[in-house]
Amino acid sequence: MASPIASAALKARVRSPSLLKKVCKPEDLLHHFPHGAYIGWSGFTGVGYPKKVPTFLADHVEQNNLQGKLKYNLFVSASSGVETENRWAELDMIQRRSPHQVGKAISKGINEGRIDFFDKHLSMFPLDLLYGYYSKERGGGLDVAVIEATDVKEDGSIILGASVGASPEIVQAADKVIIEVNTSLPSFEGLHDITITELPPHRKPYQITGVQDRIGSTSLPIPPEKIIGIVEADYRDMTGPNTDADETSVRIANHLIEFFEHEVKHGRLPENLLPLQSGIGNVANAIIGGLDKSNFKHLTVWTEVIQDTFLDLFDSGKLDFATATSVRFSPDGFKRFYDNWDKYHSKILLRNQEVSNSPEVIRRLGIIGMNTPVEVDIYAHANSTCVNGSRMLNGLGGSADFLRSSKYSIMHTPSTRPSKTDPHGVSCIVPMCTHVDQTEHDLDVIVTENGLADVRGLAPRQRAREIIKKCAHPLYQPILTHYYEKAESECLRKGMGHEPHLLFNSFDLHKALQEQGSMLKVNKW
Amino acid sequence: MASPIASAALKARVRSPSLLKKVCKPEDLLHHFPHGAYIGWSGFTGVGYPKKVPTFLADHVEQNNLQGKLKYNLFVSASSGVETENRWAELDMIQRRSPHQVGKAISKGINEGRIDFFDKHLSMFPLDLLYGYYSKERGGGLDVAVIEATDVKEDGSIILGASVGASPEIVQAADKVIIEVNTSLPSFEGLHDITITELPPHRKPYQITGVQDRIGSTSLPIPPEKIIGIVEADYRDMTGPNTDADETSVRIANHLIEFFEHEVKHGRLPENLLPLQSGIGNVANAIIGGLDKSNFKHLTVWTEVIQDTFLDLFDSGKLDFATATSVRFSPDGFKRFYDNWDKYHSKILLRNQEVSNSPEVIRRLGIIGMNTPVEVDIYAHANSTCVNGSRMLNGLGGSADFLRSSKYSIMHTPSTRPSKTDPHGVSCIVPMCTHVDQTEHDLDVIVTENGLADVRGLAPRQRAREIIKKCAHPLYQPILTHYYEKAESECLRKGMGHEPHLLFNSFDLHKALQEQGSMLKVNKW
Repeated sequence: MASPIASAALKARVRSPSLLKKVCKPEDLLHHFPHGAYIGWSGFTGVGYPKKVPTFLADHVEQNNLQGKLKYNLFVSASSGVETENRWAELDMIQRRSPHQVGKAISKGINEGRIDFFDKHLSMFPLDLLYGYYSKERGGGLDVAVIEATDVKEDGSIILGASVGASPEIVQAADKVIIEVNTSLPSFEGLHDITITELPPHRKPYQITGVQDRIGSTSLPIPPEKIIGIVEADYRDMTGPNTDADETSVRIANHLIEFFEHEVKHGRLPENLLPLQSGIGNVANAIIGGLDKSNFKHLTVWTEVIQDTFLDLFDSGKLDFATATSVRFSPDGFKRFYDNWDKYHSKILLRNQEVSNSPEVIRRLGIIGMNTPVEVDIYAHANSTCVNGSRMLNGLGGSADFLRSSKYSIMHTPSTRPSKTDPHGVSCIVPMCTHVDQTEHDLDVIVTENGLADVRGLAPRQRAREIIKKCAHPLYQPILTHYYEKAESECLRKGMGHEPHLLFNSFDLHKALQEQGSMLKVNKW
Repeated sequence: MASPIASAALKARVRSPSLLKKVCKPEDLLHHFPHGAYIGWSGFTGVGYPKKVPTFLADHVEQNNLQGKLKYNLFVSASSGVETENRWAELDMIQRRSPHQVGKAISKGINEGRIDFFDKHLSMFPLDLLYGYYSKERGGGLDVAVIEATDVKEDGSIILGASVGASPEIVQAADKVIIEVNTSLPSFEGLHDITITELPPHRKPYQITGVQDRIGSTSLPIPPEKIIGIVEADYRDMTGPNTDADETSVRIANHLIEFFEHEVKHGRLPENLLPLQSGIGNVANAIIGGLDKSNFKHLTVWTEVIQDTFLDLFDSGKLDFATATSVRFSPDGFKRFYDNWDKYHSKILLRNQEVSNSPEVIRRLGIIGMNTPVEVDIYAHANSTCVNGSRMLNGLGGSADFLRSSKYSIMHTPSTRPSKTDPHGVSCIVPMCTHVDQTEHDLDVIVTENGLADVRGLAPRQRAREIIKKCAHPLYQPILTHYYEKAESECLRKGMGHEPHLLFNSFDLHKALQEQGSMLKVNKW
């Protein structure tokens, strides 16, 4: 018999009678969330995250002045909704967080030392979670998982929402599972390819040789005895608008399109390229926009997250298929997606992040991987996470999953960013990265609005000259050249000139920024 | 009809009559080696490399005073024989070299700026070579490959020697191929599992789920029209003796064995562990020696190179199977291996380095990856290549192939090394690595003779305290603690304390070493 509190909308979505009995309100579940609990959420790039239970717990803490007294070990596939994880951070409810986050309060908590955050390759996070690495103190596993779904099937398995992320592994690791059935969303049935992650020595090859290959099932099975409650959620993912391409990002995109044409011409890429991976942000959007205006056809996408611009690429007939671990659209984009479900859903597949980001498939398919860093150095190392080596932004995400194993590993960035006092106060090309997430052994191409440096097969000294010449802003070219030439001359003289550095002055640009407000004010060497 | 110069020994090995006609002397092949040619050699960890042709070319340069006038783009799977590539470096015959090297003259040439060297993940090198990335100027490919073999079969395919490395891909990339048939070696038939590397979009999964799985063939096919000559080689790989374990390395090994026992006890490892990857050197040898004395049974190995200590592990019945891309024994070890061929050969398989080092298989099998760095920092980044950020040692090798994708990513190092004036002048645990090859997102465990830091699931500030406490030498613990605490206090105050650094003093230990001969003489902050 259905619980009396189940709405008609919810009853229509929960097709398992025995699970319908577990419908409840968030307050009924409070006792499952003691201080110090190990919690896993669904959610990736701010979509598909649970809404009601986290919000209830935040209200509970706020109303009862429990800030700092109910703190959790929180594991979310990647970033969650700002109104949930960021509010938890504001209310000092997060003791520990991994592997990626977005939100001002949470990054403030991390950088002020209240939140123990560790960022991890998104492909490896679900594995390490299942290995028990993140909860050794409790013998592995998680206490409770909260997962958003659009439907519960007759067999008790669930249809996930706009992201898969690590939800399958979080469910696998959790002792107890709460399902938030979101009745404000259409059913997402058929959009997912859910796999169960086996552990060594029982792992098998992913039998994927093309972006469209299905290897799993459309729903996520959950052992019924794990399910402790089903809660109705009644509002959609709170995404922001799409970031428009500006002039700088269009110039970056144009360099890249020209590079792809060059690679096709020289036989290193087929005419429809290879599957594209594209990050988030205005440069990524400009690239997809540029492809839309290009002559490329029958493109495919193998990436982490599908965004608004991909809908344009579908509409213009240039994109054949896209697969990722989430669809993160703007509110308008989601409306367009839902209104044209029949048109889009057969061309999209959402997979576990363990699969979408797996080095196995990325290397096999020969992905074209593209990402934006904090800074790149003259030898092609990149910093994706920590400003000045110390201040965490959002985390590593999948950048290294893709850039390490892609056929083309591409970093795109404006050549400069403004500081508080100087529109070109920060050079994104620096002598030495203050934190390294991608190594010189990983990157093939660096591109800024100024130009594109193709560093494949170049020795470090050749790389430095190419990156300074092609990528650095003209204001910084003489500064970087001076650094490089001084370093080269000193290091070669000492017989240590493979990758010349003025080691004890390698962060002088950062020092000038910190002390004088602009890297341009650096004292030359 | 056989060429008149073929010896009886060579005739016995070359079972293809048409190829027997191509037997020649190195001097007959000189015209294939013009200045600037793109050359690929077999060879990995100093075994299975061609001997006669490189030596002839070196003699030719020396005798005709052609130093610096015959320079080549030289690509070898990994390191070659010292008497070949190092002599080439002495004679200034190497313009460009990748992806890994060993030898004093070659590293001197690199660090003095005469050799353009770039190190690359060993798993990625064969792919990038086939993509044409390393010879874009000539439209991809190589001019000529020189490959050591022990036999040429009736069908013209060859049986490789003590290493596979990238030989299959080098042959695939080369316009012309020279085979050096080494008649001083026994036939290696049956020891190899040779695969042909397909390129995207045609790549397939490697159907390997256990260390013993065969997916290829025992011989390497070569299109007969590519073969321009067959040369007899008459001496064995010039390897050195095995490195003995010292007290420090035994203590490191003991910490690791204890850790493995702990992991088994907590259910994170099966009783026979998971396939082991082990590097080269005395620590690696001590670990294998330690396993030999332990209670572990039915061990397996998935690694790059099989060494003498593995023979002991076979003999004691503890090791069931070992697979790698080369067998690099000491002269005594090789004798033991050849004398007991029947006993060992069915328990060993040599694969392409593209397979032995592939992230696909490493992650699937859940390898226990172990490596020695130049230095590790307090946040668990590691430098594997460049001393003081600039001076190249040997190159990245497969360290990042394994450490990025292994289930257990372990760095082992003595806590200190001697400087010229101080037995503890160099701390291997430093505030910030001067070059990063392995990132904090990759490493799980750091171990020195002092202890073992298990950093899985720890935030950077927790990691720093653990690494300093467990791994740093007691002489350096107060220095590193002082650095860390000052950095923590300053960075937290500024709201940038995720990974605290005194950025502009992060290399002060290296400065003290350079200026005062010991890191112990650093001025505290």
